[in-house]
Amino acid sequence: MSGREFFTTRTVAEALAGFRPARRTALEDVPLAEALHRVPAADVAAAAALPGFARSTVDGFAVRAADTYGASEGLPSYLDLVGAVRMGMAPTVAVRPGGCVAMPTGGVLPDGADAVVMVEHTAETMPGTIEVTRPVAPLDGIVRADEDVAAGAPLVPGGRPLRSPDLGLLAAAGVTTVRVHARPRVAIISTGDEVVPPSTAQLRPGQVRDATASALAGLVRDAGGEPVLAGIVPDDAGALEATLRDTLREADLVVVSAGSSVGARDETAGAVAALGEIWCHGLAIKPGKPTLLAECKAECGSGVPLIGLPGNPLSALVVFRLVGVPLVWRLAGCPVPPPEPSTPARLSRDLPSAAGRLDVVQVAVQDGTATPIFGPSALLSVLTRADGCLVVPEAATGLAAGSPVQVTLYR
Amino acid sequence: MSGREFFTTRTVAEALAGFRPARRTALEDVPLAEALHRVPAADVAAAAALPGFARSTVDGFAVRAADTYGASEGLPSYLDLVGAVRMGMAPTVAVRPGGCVAMPTGGVLPDGADAVVMVEHTAETMPGTIEVTRPVAPLDGIVRADEDVAAGAPLVPGGRPLRSPDLGLLAAAGVTTVRVHARPRVAIISTGDEVVPPSTAQLRPGQVRDATASALAGLVRDAGGEPVLAGIVPDDAGALEATLRDTLREADLVVVSAGSSVGARDETAGAVAALGEIWCHGLAIKPGKPTLLAECKAECGSGVPLIGLPGNPLSALVVFRLVGVPLVWRLAGCPVPPPEPSTPARLSRDLPSAAGRLDVVQVAVQDGTATPIFGPSALLSVLTRADGCLVVPEAATGLAAGSPVQVTLYR
Repeated sequence: MSGREFFTTRTVAEALAGFRPARRTALEDVPLAEALHRVPAADVAAAAALPGFARSTVDGFAVRAADTYGASEGLPSYLDLVGAVRMGMAPTVAVRPGGCVAMPTGGVLPDGADAVVMVEHTAETMPGTIEVTRPVAPLDGIVRADEDVAAGAPLVPGGRPLRSPDLGLLAAAGVTTVRVHARPRVAIISTGDEVVPPSTAQLRPGQVRDATASALAGLVRDAGGEPVLAGIVPDDAGALEATLRDTLREADLVVVSAGSSVGARDETAGAVAALGEIWCHGLAIKPGKPTLLAECKAECGSGVPLIGLPGNPLSALVVFRLVGVPLVWRLAGCPVPPPEPSTPARLSRDLPSAAGRLDVVQVAVQDGTATPIFGPSALLSVLTRADGCLVVPEAATGLAAGSPVQVTLYR
Repeated sequence: MSGREFFTTRTVAEALAGFRPARRTALEDVPLAEALHRVPAADVAAAAALPGFARSTVDGFAVRAADTYGASEGLPSYLDLVGAVRMGMAPTVAVRPGGCVAMPTGGVLPDGADAVVMVEHTAETMPGTIEVTRPVAPLDGIVRADEDVAAGAPLVPGGRPLRSPDLGLLAAAGVTTVRVHARPRVAIISTGDEVVPPSTAQLRPGQVRDATASALAGLVRDAGGEPVLAGIVPDDAGALEATLRDTLREADLVVVSAGSSVGARDETAGAVAALGEIWCHGLAIKPGKPTLLAECKAECGSGVPLIGLPGNPLSALVVFRLVGVPLVWRLAGCPVPPPEPSTPARLSRDLPSAAGRLDVVQVAVQDGTATPIFGPSALLSVLTRADGCLVVPEAATGLAAGSPVQVTLYR
């Protein structure tokens, strides 16, 4: 039971607010086609205004708006059709008082024109003469040359993962490479004398295949990180310390999927203490209490954050979702992770909880009812059967059946 | 205006329910590390039970539960400590009446034992004798050999994209490759005489860089598809038809980012009509009305669905999110796309809408208030400034300021 006396427990809120290593990944230039969900370090500014020219937003006729004032079905304005604008081409004629030019949607507004009349409000009753039956105001039917983005204005903000429309706007501005933070390299170390690789065909009694590393790798990818599976280390503080030293050189974050026994946890804490400063030895969360957070200080990997996860796969994944995922985003320069899917629901039954502890409960959701899925946290199938999870806040002593809850949905 | 007489408009609900091509992508085996968000064609069954042996879930002592009945702080049960189980090893001793074996969390339950007492409820006051101060029932402190998954039972379901915990359970079961639907190849054809590649450094008057293709490619990737940029085709029905014929041979879905003028739309419809059956020429949606849905019937690419999108980038992306994204998932064997992030909010102002038409409104969300961002649908920056969008349903004639709305958040 050694080490229990020094057990520092923090709340999840304290960990999210207080465990914020300063480390950020380096910058790199990536082609636009590979920039989805990557995080630009700074605003990307437009070199020139967009769309770059005043453009028609309708099919119709470019006019001087003043020439249409007072026009109606009963008393149309008659305008001389002096030409047509072709898509992708500069206009070859200008609009003079009493004249108009045929416009396709997206065409360049000719000189002299300040609006475009929709074709629906016109008729060509005589060749070369257009009847306008409804007045337009200046700027009607057009976008200005800088209406999408002004020259020098930001196309996309720094610090926010790029979304699909962002890629479109960057393409429109001719930006074909983007300077973004490198994907955080997240080293995943599995520990445990009982743990063998997933590829092990036949298990000996007592052996289990490494489930947590594959699942963690998925969560890391979803958070924009690059998982690096650093292998399986036996329950031995010396072996773990050696692996940690190797791993720290190349990693932006180290995750130790710790042995689940008290002894194994103590060994992890010992190895980590030799390399850095332990920020907490436990989190006030169920499942997931035996979580260790540290920042490495040794000559190698200074400033690399380290998460020691509980040994049970379910607990490990619950904790990594809450604490690890925001950390991966933060390392990539994104202080606020993108939103997760969620849905409101009513709780199917009472959920007891201890005050001062965050409870994360796996639930199935159907027809607006969230039904808790219970089971030992040694069981991974609880997570695969769940549609999502809900949180009983630290202050609450439980939730009554019928309580409204917000369920974070898995995707 | 030719073609308007034959304009078939459908609601979005009709399109989602009725435009459901039977095509599915082929199956392929992928390594577990690349299986995240891929869709297994069928349930993946466990070859053997998991965890495969009865396992302790606590640090403590394996016992026969009956030996602890009636135990209390005042009157403990005294059990002979006959050995210890080591992690990852088969037990070397059995538990006989009156005996116990020391257990690490995750250790194999020895023969004869039916429960594990937590170490916290024991004391070793004399070497070799364990005092148990609280009774346990059979199965307390253990998981059964088949409690995670029974032999032959599904590990993960078919038809649902694989999530991170699924990868963990598959790894635990020794499944290192998964048979999944191939990523749908989504060909994106851009059209328009004015459209030039994003890499074009200097635009001539009237030219615009192709924004929509890059943004669509992002949406396709998010939906698990593989975008194939098929290039830019001028506004010419013959050229478009030729490109379509080429593209259809290799694609599971063809998206035409159509010219925005009425004439260009007519040309697209003409080219598509030559190759397949047009399911609708328009959707009752704003923005996005000039959307064409078709299923190709020609010798090449039979059964390949085709979406002709509006020419405005904003409209094109709104429609593709609503109609195209579910189609990409469906092609990959996933009938229900994974959930999108969303948040409840109150509307900042009145939103007028026409009954019978779905309105998609881009909004900024702050402190629970959704503020519409208006602007011509020719502007892409509306989408990059928005936090998400809300839908004014087909039946509604608008929403009043203060109405509760559900905002789909972008990520």
